[in-house]
This record gives sequence, structure tokens and C-alpha cells, in this order.
Amino acid sequence: MTSEKAWRADVYVALKAGVNDPQGLAVRDGLHRLGYDEVSQVRVGRYIQVWLEAPDEEAAAARVREMCERLLANPVIEEYRFHVVRA
Amino acid sequence: MTSEKAWRADVYVALKAGVNDPQGLAVRDGLHRLGYDEVSQVRVGRYIQVWLEAPDEEAAAARVREMCERLLANPVIEEYRFHVVRA
Repeated sequence: MTSEKAWRADVYVALKAGVNDPQGLAVRDGLHRLGYDEVSQVRVGRYIQVWLEAPDEEAAAARVREMCERLLANPVIEEYRFHVVRA
Repeated sequence: MTSEKAWRADVYVALKAGVNDPQGLAVRDGLHRLGYDEVSQVRVGRYIQVWLEAPDEEAAAARVREMCERLLANPVIEEYRFHVVRA
């Protein structure tokens, strides 16, 4: 019986290029009001940390990819990347 | 006159340990309902990309640190890290 190990996945979810980003626009306007005129664009996404058990890194990554596809990211408008480390 | 260059900062904002994370709890419950019982904890933060002009990397990083302290992160409940790359 393989022993289960603890892993942490750091998942980064961002809007696909070309998708309207009202939150990014609001943050950019806020930065401009604070005097950061050198900022040309802002895009806001999600940074999700998931702690899970899995026998090895490959198994952990496979499950995290499934979680991204089914819940953590909206495949229509978002793209994601992640990496897995021992917790 | 030093020429301005284009940079991109990738900023990761996460709740400080111990701070209540209702969003993380909701995502964890969602993953459990989809059958991912091996997930013990989820924390949700923000992944913010900022495009800006600056004469060099050090100047860009100094400005981004100010932006984090003043707008992008809430210092009371959040912590942030970022890295700067040429855009």
C-alpha cells in the first residue's frame, strides 16, 4: 500500500487575453488616481492554494488539473497554470 | 536622459495565516462535493499583473512595492510578494 503524502498546489487563474477585465480597469484607474501614471495595464486573476494528499507528485498534479478543469477555472474565459510542492 | 523600459509585475496577494477565508472554505466544500475528499484546505488570493514603464528593474520594483502597500494589498489581513520581468 503506497503511503499518502501531503502536497500543496499553487494555482494561478487569469483571464484569457482579449477577455474584458473590468476589475483590472478599476485597479488601473485607482493606481492612476494615486499618481502611478506609468501603469499602462492591469489584469486581475485568482491565486488559489490547495493542500491535498496523494501518493506522489504526478498523482497530485493529475488531480489538481481535474480540479482546475471542473471548478477552479472557467475554461471559456480563463486559463490556468499550477505547480505542486511537498507541503 | 535614461530611456523608459516596459516591465510586467506579477503580484500574488494572499490572506495572512489565521485570517478567516470564507472563499477558501467554499471552494474546498465545492471540491469535496465533486469527490476530491483528499483536499484538506484551500486558500484563495489575488494574482495581479501590472504593466508599467520604468528606467530599470529596481525602479520598477520600488514603485510596485508602493502600489502593493497603498492599493493592491490590505496590509492588515493580507501579505504579498511579486517579481518583475521585462514586458
